[in-house]
Amino acid sequence: MHDFERLADKVRNWGRWGERDQRGTLNLIGPEALLRGTQAVSAGKAFSLGLDFGSDGPQLNKSRFNPLLFVTDLFTPLNPARPNAMYSDDVITMPLQCATQWDALGHVHYNGRLYGGVEADAALSTKGTSHCGVEHLAKPGIVSRGILIDVARLYNVRRLPADHVISVEDLRRACDMAGIAPQPGDIACIRTGHISHFTVDADRAAFNGLQPGVGIAVAEWLYERQISAVASDNVAVETLNPEMLASDLPLPFHMLALREMGMPLGEMWNFEELAEDCAADGRYSFLLCAPPLAITHAFGSPVNPIALK
Amino acid sequence: MHDFERLADKVRNWGRWGERDQRGTLNLIGPEALLRGTQAVSAGKAFSLGLDFGSDGPQLNKSRFNPLLFVTDLFTPLNPARPNAMYSDDVITMPLQCATQWDALGHVHYNGRLYGGVEADAALSTKGTSHCGVEHLAKPGIVSRGILIDVARLYNVRRLPADHVISVEDLRRACDMAGIAPQPGDIACIRTGHISHFTVDADRAAFNGLQPGVGIAVAEWLYERQISAVASDNVAVETLNPEMLASDLPLPFHMLALREMGMPLGEMWNFEELAEDCAADGRYSFLLCAPPLAITHAFGSPVNPIALK
Amino acid sequence: MHDFERLADKVRNWGRWGERDQRGTLNLIGPEALLRGTQAVSAGKAFSLGLDFGSDGPQLNKSRFNPLLFVTDLFTPLNPARPNAMYSDDVITMPLQCATQWDALGHVHYNGRLYGGVEADAALSTKGTSHCGVEHLAKPGIVSRGILIDVARLYNVRRLPADHVISVEDLRRACDMAGIAPQPGDIACIRTGHISHFTVDADRAAFNGLQPGVGIAVAEWLYERQISAVASDNVAVETLNPEMLASDLPLPFHMLALREMGMPLGEMWNFEELAEDCAADGRYSFLLCAPPLAITHAFGSPVNPIALK
Amino acid sequence: MHDFERLADKVRNWGRWGERDQRGTLNLIGPEALLRGTQAVSAGKAFSLGLDFGSDGPQLNKSRFNPLLFVTDLFTPLNPARPNAMYSDDVITMPLQCATQWDALGHVHYNGRLYGGVEADAALSTKGTSHCGVEHLAKPGIVSRGILIDVARLYNVRRLPADHVISVEDLRRACDMAGIAPQPGDIACIRTGHISHFTVDADRAAFNGLQPGVGIAVAEWLYERQISAVASDNVAVETLNPEMLASDLPLPFHMLALREMGMPLGEMWNFEELAEDCAADGRYSFLLCAPPLAITHAFGSPVNPIALK
Repeated sequence: MHDFERLADKVRNWGRWGERDQRGTLNLIGPEALLRGTQAVSAGKAFSLGLDFGSDGPQLNKSRFNPLLFVTDLFTPLNPARPNAMYSDDVITMPLQCATQWDALGHVHYNGRLYGGVEADAALSTKGTSHCGVEHLAKPGIVSRGILIDVARLYNVRRLPADHVISVEDLRRACDMAGIAPQPGDIACIRTGHISHFTVDADRAAFNGLQPGVGIAVAEWLYERQISAVASDNVAVETLNPEMLASDLPLPFHMLALREMGMPLGEMWNFEELAEDCAADGRYSFLLCAPPLAITHAFGSPVNPIALK
Repeated sequence: MHDFERLADKVRNWGRWGERDQRGTLNLIGPEALLRGTQAVSAGKAFSLGLDFGSDGPQLNKSRFNPLLFVTDLFTPLNPARPNAMYSDDVITMPLQCATQWDALGHVHYNGRLYGGVEADAALSTKGTSHCGVEHLAKPGIVSRGILIDVARLYNVRRLPADHVISVEDLRRACDMAGIAPQPGDIACIRTGHISHFTVDADRAAFNGLQPGVGIAVAEWLYERQISAVASDNVAVETLNPEMLASDLPLPFHMLALREMGMPLGEMWNFEELAEDCAADGRYSFLLCAPPLAITHAFGSPVNPIALK
Repeated sequence: MHDFERLADKVRNWGRWGERDQRGTLNLIGPEALLRGTQAVSAGKAFSLGLDFGSDGPQLNKSRFNPLLFVTDLFTPLNPARPNAMYSDDVITMPLQCATQWDALGHVHYNGRLYGGVEADAALSTKGTSHCGVEHLAKPGIVSRGILIDVARLYNVRRLPADHVISVEDLRRACDMAGIAPQPGDIACIRTGHISHFTVDADRAAFNGLQPGVGIAVAEWLYERQISAVASDNVAVETLNPEMLASDLPLPFHMLALREMGMPLGEMWNFEELAEDCAADGRYSFLLCAPPLAITHAFGSPVNPIALK
Repeated sequence: MHDFERLADKVRNWGRWGERDQRGTLNLIGPEALLRGTQAVSAGKAFSLGLDFGSDGPQLNKSRFNPLLFVTDLFTPLNPARPNAMYSDDVITMPLQCATQWDALGHVHYNGRLYGGVEADAALSTKGTSHCGVEHLAKPGIVSRGILIDVARLYNVRRLPADHVISVEDLRRACDMAGIAPQPGDIACIRTGHISHFTVDADRAAFNGLQPGVGIAVAEWLYERQISAVASDNVAVETLNPEMLASDLPLPFHMLALREMGMPLGEMWNFEELAEDCAADGRYSFLLCAPPLAITHAFGSPVNPIALK
C-alpha cells in the first residue's frame, strides 16, 4: 500500500484545472497537441481501432452481456398508402462497457470519493453520476496525437503472457524502439497483443481472464509526461492477476488514473492492424480521434477510435 | 416522378466499386482527401457536433424514444471482502436513430431493392440487415475533409423557415460565401439552423415536424462533386413537407443518397458552435472525423462527430 | 406523526411469522380462506382485472414508461431448409410497475429498515432486493377469497373525487351495502372508480395525478380483520394529495402496509366490469387468483388478476 | 405428411367460433368447466407451477436470454426534502418465451396462414401480431379445471427419456391411473418430468435439447375431448427429436394446436410439487388459474400458473 499511496499523492490532479473540473487530463490537450497530431498524418491512411458491437462480442454473458439488437421497423412503408418505399429502424440494449470503450472518470472510486474529491454518495445513483459522467469527455471529444507503445513487439511476441506486468522500463524501451518521445497531450496506446485471444482464437474465457497490462508505476510515467489519456488492447489496461484482485485495493491503476489523475481509460481497443502498419513504415505516431458519445451521467461509452497516419 | 427517375439513373453507383460493395461513396475517400482534411487544421481547435444522449433528448417518445440508462452496478465492491474500492456500470437501451446519427445504406429501400441492387427480402430481417449494415461504414471509419455549407448564414437568418427547400443554387452561393470549392471525398455539412428548435427552444414538436432541408436536385450536385457523405442539422437532411410525405415516394433524397448513390446520411448534427467559428475566421473547411460504431447488421449508429480546425 | 406512529406500532407484524419471514400477511391465507373463496364461486364466470400492457398504457413516459415490445423473430423458418413453417418471438422491456401490478414488500422503506426490521442497506442494490423480493409472493401465489368494497358505488358516483380520503367508516358502510363480512385471509379490493380517467377518458395526467384512495386509518381496519392483501383501481391504493406528498413521510399507507404489516399492495387494477356484475347480482365476494411472476429480487410484478364468481 | 394433413383437417377449428375468433379452444371453457374446477378444490392448498424469472433461468443465452433486471430507483426519497422515506423501482427486459409461458395462437404458422386462416403477411410485423396476440387469451384469463396426466409416474420413472414420444395410449392409461375422465373445457397438464434436468441438475443443455413430449396423434385426442388448453413441463410440449426438427414441417404439434385448433400451449411449467401431492392423495384434478398478461400484439406471455386442490 505504501507504494500506492505515494503514487496517489504524486499523480493527484484534484483542483489542478479548477474545483469543478470534470475533464481531468483531457485538459492537457491544447492546440499544440492537436497540431502535433495532424502533422503526424503523412500517408492519408485511416485505421479503426474498434471491435464490432454484436452478439459475437467479447462478453461471456455472465455479468456483462453482448449487445442485443432489436429491429423495431422492418419493411415499414414511409407512406402507408404507398407500400413501395420502406425503411427499417432498430434499438440497441448494451452494457456501455461491453466492447471497445472509454471509462468515464466516475466509473470507480475508493474511500468514498471520486476524482476531484467529490463524495461518491452525493454523485452516484441509479440515474448515473452527476459528477464526471462520460458526457464531459465527449465535448469537444477526445482527439490528439496518439503514440503506439508496442510492448508485444518489443518482446518479439504475438502477445504478452498473462502474467506480464508492463513496467516503466518496458514503456521507455518501446518508445525508443518506435523512435517516439511522448509529448504533453499525447494519448498513449499500449499494445499487449492480448486481444487476439478474442479476435483470432475466439477464446472469451482467456480474453476476460488473467492478463498482461500495466503496473501501477506506469501511472507516474504517464503523469510526468503529461499524457492525456491511455488505452490498451486488453480488458482493464492494467494487469489482472490473483493477488491484485484479492487485495485491499483491486484495480489500483484504475484508481490512480480515473480517480487521482482524472485520466480516461480506453479498454478493448484493437491495435493489430495499426501495429502491423507502424512496424512496416516505422512511424508510431498518428492523429487519434476517439470521441465518446455524450451519454448523460453515464459511467462509460462505446467508441470506434480512428487512427490517421 | 420523371425528375426523380432521371436523377436516380444519373446518380446510381451500383457496381461502381464492385458487385459486393457495401461502403458506397465512402470509397471516394482516398489519401488525398484525408490529407486535404488534415491540412485544413491550422488552429488546433476541436468541435463536437453531437447532441447529448439522455432522457432530455429530441425524441417525442411516440415511436422513437430517448435513451434509457440503467445502472447495473453502483457502489459495487471490486473485492467483496474489501468494500473500500468500488465501481459502477451501466446499460443503455436506445433507438440507434434517436439523436446525432449516421443512417446506414440499408436503412431505406424501394422497389424491393437496396443499394447495389440487392433484394431487400434477402437482406432484411429482425436480425438487421445482412447487406450494407452500419458496420461496413465503421471500418476504417468516416474521416475526410469536411466543408460547412451554411445556408442559414447565406440567408442571414438564425434558422431557415420550415418550407425552405435547399437548392443547388443555395449550395453554390453558400460555398462561394465560404470560399470553398468542394473536392472529391469531401463530407458536406449543410447547416439549416433548424436544430435550435430543440437545443435552444426545447420545442421537440417543431424540431420533429415540417422542416427545411435539401431538395432532390442536391443529390446530383453531390454526385457530380464526388462528395463522400452528407450531414445536416435537421432530422432527415432533406426537407419534410406534406406533399412529399404523402407522395408515391416519400423521402426521395434518402432514396437517391442511400439507395442509389450509396451515400451515408448524417442526421441531427449540431453545427451551431462550429458555424460561429467559421464565420469568425472565415475558414469553412476542417478535418471531420465521425466514426459510426460497428454495430453488426444495424440500420444506423449514434455518432459524436468531431471537426478539427 | 403521532397518529402514524401509533398505527405503525399497532399493525407491525415483524417476527409474527418467524424472523426470516418474507411473505407477510399472505401467511394469513390458509385452507379455510381458500375454500371460502372457491365456495364463493356459483355462476362460473371469470373476470380479468388487469390492464393491457402496451404502448397505450397509463404511463406518461416521464419517469416510468409504457412497455416496449421488440419482435426478435418474425417469419423465421423452423427449419432453414424448409421456409414453409415459421415462428415469431418477442422480447419485452417494461417497468415492473407500469400497469396492473403487485408491489413487493421490499418496494419501500423508512428509517433504513424494510419489513421485518431488515436493514435496507444490507438488502437493496442494483441487483434488486435480497429480502422480500416479489418472488416470495409468487409461491404458492396470491389466491384467496376476494371481496369488492365498492366505495364509489356507496357514494353513488362513477368515480370518487380526487380529494376523497377513504375512511374506515366508508369501508364499513360499503361492506354493509355489499352484505359482506370480511374474513381472515380475504383480499380486499377497494374500488374508487378512478381508473376510468385512463380507461375511458384516456386522461393520463388525471389518472397519475392527485387522486382518491385510502387514508392511513384503513391500515388498522385491515389489520384487525386479518386481511391478507389489498388492491385498488388507482395508482397507489392510498390517496395522493399535496400535503401528504410534501410531508415528512409521504405514502404513509404504503409504509404501514408494506413495511409494517408485510401486506402486498395491488395497484392499477380494473374493477369496472366486476363491479357492474356485483351490483347486478348482489354478490360481492369471489375467488381471487392474482399470481405475481416470481421475478428474482424484484420490487414488484405485473399481474393479470382473475376474479371467479 | 399424410398423417399430419389428416389430423390437421380433423382438428381444424377455423370459423367454429366465428370468423374473427381469436380465443380458439378457450371458447370451450364455460361455466360448467369453471365450476367443475372449483368443485375439485377440497383441501384448500395452492401450488405455483411457475419457474423463477431471473439470471439463473433456463435459457442458454444463445438466442433467447434470461431476464435482465434493471433497478431504476434505489433508495430514492419519496420527498426529496425528507430523505427518510424511500422507494425502489425496477425495469425488466426479457424474452416473453424465456421461462414458464403461454404461446399465443399467433406464435407459429405455415403455408402463410395463422389460426382462422388469416394471412400471416397481413397480421405479423415488428410491432407484433394484429391477429391472435396473447392479449386475447388474457381476458377473461385462462381458468378451468385442470387435470394432471402424469406420464412419468405411469412409467414409474423420475423423468421420461429424451426419445419418449407420448402416445394417445399413454394419456389414456395415465388418466386411468389418476382416475380422471377428461371433460370439455379441461386444461390438460402433461407431466414428463423433463424439467428436473434444469430445476434439479441445472443442466440447461439437456433441458433445451432433445426431449420427450407428445406426438401428433395427441392433438386428435385433445380435440375429441374438447380440451381447452395443454401445458407441459418441457420446452415445447411436443417431443423434440432430430428427424422432426429436420423435416418439412418441424414442430407439427405446435401447428396442429396453435394454428389448426387454436389451442394455447403452456411450456416450461413445473409439476413436480403438484405431482407429489396428487400421487399422495390420489386426486389428479384441481382448479387451474393461469392468466397470461394482456401484452398487446405479443406472441406469448410469461405466466405463474396456480393449481388449487
